[in-house]
Amino acid sequence: MRISQLSAASGVPIPTIKYYLREGLLPQGEQTGATRAEYGQAHLRRLRLIRALLEVGRLPVASIAKIVAAVEDESTPVHRMLGTAHYALASPAVSDPGDQEQLAARERVDRLIDDLGWRITPDAPTRDELAQVLVRLAQLGRPAGEDDLRHYADVIMRLVAEREIGKVPMDGPRETAVESLVIGTVLYGKVFDVLRRLAHESESARLLEGRPAPPVRRTSRPERAG
Amino acid sequence: MRISQLSAASGVPIPTIKYYLREGLLPQGEQTGATRAEYGQAHLRRLRLIRALLEVGRLPVASIAKIVAAVEDESTPVHRMLGTAHYALASPAVSDPGDQEQLAARERVDRLIDDLGWRITPDAPTRDELAQVLVRLAQLGRPAGEDDLRHYADVIMRLVAEREIGKVPMDGPRETAVESLVIGTVLYGKVFDVLRRLAHESESARLLEGRPAPPVRRTSRPERAG
Repeated sequence: MRISQLSAASGVPIPTIKYYLREGLLPQGEQTGATRAEYGQAHLRRLRLIRALLEVGRLPVASIAKIVAAVEDESTPVHRMLGTAHYALASPAVSDPGDQEQLAARERVDRLIDDLGWRITPDAPTRDELAQVLVRLAQLGRPAGEDDLRHYADVIMRLVAEREIGKVPMDGPRETAVESLVIGTVLYGKVFDVLRRLAHESESARLLEGRPAPPVRRTSRPERAG
Repeated sequence: MRISQLSAASGVPIPTIKYYLREGLLPQGEQTGATRAEYGQAHLRRLRLIRALLEVGRLPVASIAKIVAAVEDESTPVHRMLGTAHYALASPAVSDPGDQEQLAARERVDRLIDDLGWRITPDAPTRDELAQVLVRLAQLGRPAGEDDLRHYADVIMRLVAEREIGKVPMDGPRETAVESLVIGTVLYGKVFDVLRRLAHESESARLLEGRPAPPVRRTSRPERAG
């Protein structure tokens, strides 16, 4: 198909397609004349992937270029290619690398992953991301208990293994696997998060409804510490 | 204590404390002279809450003012007060209210909540938030199945009821309950999300490791649609 047909089929404007071609995000079409090129299903699929990374993953173009390079390099195994996409979705760690609290939390995360027997590369940024949340929880006086972490991890792994991972099509085109992973990670992560907030609302309603209002307390007067 | 001691005990600079006093986020201290006021534990607790809402919840000051008003108004039942905090944490819905896809998804969410027997107020913005994610998933060709949604909801409710809700101290000072809810919702939500991404990495490693590399395919040539 011509570039105008590619634009109509994908919903991506022609100038945007040309920008992706210049940046190397989209492979060149087959030249069929001095100013004509022919595009195919592979281009359509790539455009879908780029839009998913941009609009769902909200990734910067530089990260998208890295993922596209891993998709195109067929010598990169599928697992490593998916890892590249995964890592691009992690929030960058902002803490000082010499921070003692962060280092201790990171060791705790590494031990947890070992104990669970999970296969996570040693340099996965997700390790530091989890360590950072643990540090913040401890600083706010709500440290995460070992038992809770392991219980969460077990429940989540069961869901992922039984319900989610099977939906990433590992044997189809490489871009389809990445696209599916990004949608699954970001959007199903959001489904999870909203359901969890709904469950909190419902449970606190159940616990508190019908209870009498607490006695009136003046907040502007000093009180004993709780 | 004096304002300088309140600053030292809370770690909040004096000018920031004065700003919170002017904005009504922090109740005035007890006047003990023309230019002197005395502050107490209630002020310390309120400062902790404000910092949690700002730094963990990343809420704008206007939303914080609404939550503080619900905390101070002792005639607001604890459940409604927590609801105010919950709703402030929801992402505002951005879709056109007349959008047919959004309306259909919203009906689906309402039915799901009814079927689950969850106690959610009819105007909870979380309902629209979930509907919006369902619309996006369908548009991207990954519609969420009824069975998956119910299964997620069941697993999440079990976790919340057994492990989480008990940690929100419902009987202590009102600010402590809100603070705990914000930390629990935002930071434990993040723990969840990171563990889920780790589980995905581990499962895809387990499924794909050791498999031979797929045959080389040229991505710049048109292929048959998958």
